[in-house]
Amino acid sequence: MNKQPHLQDIRSAHQRIRPYIHKTPVMTCTALNLITGAKLFFKCENFQKTGAFKFRGACNAIFSLSGQEASRGVVTHSSGNHAGALALAALKRGIGARIVMPSDASAVKIAAVKSYGGIITFCEPTLTSRENAAEQIIKETGAILIHPSNDYRIIAGQATAALELVEEIENLDFLLAPVGGGGLLSGTVIAAKGLNPKIKVMGCEPKNADDAYRSIKAGRIIPSENPNTIADGLRTSLGDKTFPIIRDLVDEIVLATEEEIITAMRYIFERMKIVAEPSAAVPLAVLLSNQINVTDKNVGIIISGGNVDFSKFFEEMLKENKS
Amino acid sequence: MNKQPHLQDIRSAHQRIRPYIHKTPVMTCTALNLITGAKLFFKCENFQKTGAFKFRGACNAIFSLSGQEASRGVVTHSSGNHAGALALAALKRGIGARIVMPSDASAVKIAAVKSYGGIITFCEPTLTSRENAAEQIIKETGAILIHPSNDYRIIAGQATAALELVEEIENLDFLLAPVGGGGLLSGTVIAAKGLNPKIKVMGCEPKNADDAYRSIKAGRIIPSENPNTIADGLRTSLGDKTFPIIRDLVDEIVLATEEEIITAMRYIFERMKIVAEPSAAVPLAVLLSNQINVTDKNVGIIISGGNVDFSKFFEEMLKENKS
Repeated sequence: MNKQPHLQDIRSAHQRIRPYIHKTPVMTCTALNLITGAKLFFKCENFQKTGAFKFRGACNAIFSLSGQEASRGVVTHSSGNHAGALALAALKRGIGARIVMPSDASAVKIAAVKSYGGIITFCEPTLTSRENAAEQIIKETGAILIHPSNDYRIIAGQATAALELVEEIENLDFLLAPVGGGGLLSGTVIAAKGLNPKIKVMGCEPKNADDAYRSIKAGRIIPSENPNTIADGLRTSLGDKTFPIIRDLVDEIVLATEEEIITAMRYIFERMKIVAEPSAAVPLAVLLSNQINVTDKNVGIIISGGNVDFSKFFEEMLKENKS
Repeated sequence: MNKQPHLQDIRSAHQRIRPYIHKTPVMTCTALNLITGAKLFFKCENFQKTGAFKFRGACNAIFSLSGQEASRGVVTHSSGNHAGALALAALKRGIGARIVMPSDASAVKIAAVKSYGGIITFCEPTLTSRENAAEQIIKETGAILIHPSNDYRIIAGQATAALELVEEIENLDFLLAPVGGGGLLSGTVIAAKGLNPKIKVMGCEPKNADDAYRSIKAGRIIPSENPNTIADGLRTSLGDKTFPIIRDLVDEIVLATEEEIITAMRYIFERMKIVAEPSAAVPLAVLLSNQINVTDKNVGIIISGGNVDFSKFFEEMLKENKS
């Protein structure tokens, strides 16, 4: 796919990946409706396979490959949810996945990639080093590069979460999605406005990694440099494929502070009883900060993932409790 | 209700409380199926109103009262999930709820009771002090005592979780529920065996609070004295109404260590992406310890609640992350 996807492409992607993905549930929460004054509908991609929406895009990219392409295997560089998602999608198709990961990637993420049969190449934790390592693998093996976000197949795949949500919940006034590399947000806005042009689509971004906000304002891509945010899935910047879609279609980029993100994450844990990673809490964080007037509105929120590192939490619990 | 409930009483309870409760979802988890070798079906009472199955029993007790009884209000003593559940159920009926809580009850639990309009009386953190305080309130106000577990109305209400699960998932071979005071377990076994006598029902108990295990062995109630377990919902002991039901109908009481409980809780967080409190993790803990042969069996598990104190987790996160 070498042009911006349209609604029909997203429907095709949905047909393609449907046998492999979960149709995730839409949850509501009386307590959070009371707090925000809106009717919230949470699309729970934390319950997606591999714990994040990333599996949708990875599946679409991998099952879009021709037989000949697929036989060469795939490669990507990622320290996050795309790594595990691509490895599992490749496993489902029965092809090889090579994942370039920074040497400081978390043990949990490394274990996930391995458990799905992905072959890991470690590199220095810099973008140049990651790109070079991937380039080297492509030269040696002919593997197909599947970028985590700046790829139309990925965008069309991620869009299927919004497709399911907007088809299930009629009359959404707003749809909020987090924005990092922009794969989820650009897919979301194409799907949502394709189904209902009246839906306002907001990109939700950490203030500490506000490259989308600044890029839209400036009219050109201004990447974040080593942004320091707890929302580890949103540290990447927009690319040349995601930027124009977001610039042309998204209504607004809204920012959340670290404190707001953590508070929102706590609300999701304590009120909804589900596990959301910091990146997934950014849309609710934006709502809690009252920057958008959503009173009595129907608001869709994409809970993008649930991969939280609980090592410290449970290790301390083990230390304090013995039989 | 002054006799042991039968399946028909549980069906009546379900009709009575249906307008107020959530029909909670049944979740599955491929990763945990692989780990245990069984097909697991989790009845997610952590998504129940007030975050625990306790709301079912509280609703049934309160909506079973005659108009005259109800006008006197209700009272209970509880530091846990029953406190909030009774307060909200009373609010739904529009009657007063007085809750005796120990002075060391957690701030979160106190806030929950207050938010539902419950009137709290604090007392010393001993059973005698709690019972005396409740007795005093009954004398002064004529309020009706609703015990957290040793009450047939409560038992019939808690049983509706198993009723929904066994009606939704056919051919369960096993059904596992945690046991503390025994309200949930005794209701569960009546509902499950009433619908399908072949289901084996197992009570799952912390080794550090094994009064049900010891009581069944001895043939009489042997309460735990100040048991030290992280499963705070299971520190109470069987009563004269719950003990005979469990003795006569439950197939086995199986124990889990603190380490096993914490490991199971971690699996639920990390693999299922849902929040379960320690008490709710005890059945999975029992499975992980391989005490029951469940290979290729269909196993129902009641995730009893999701009220976890995350204060420390999020306060540390806030300290480490600033905008």
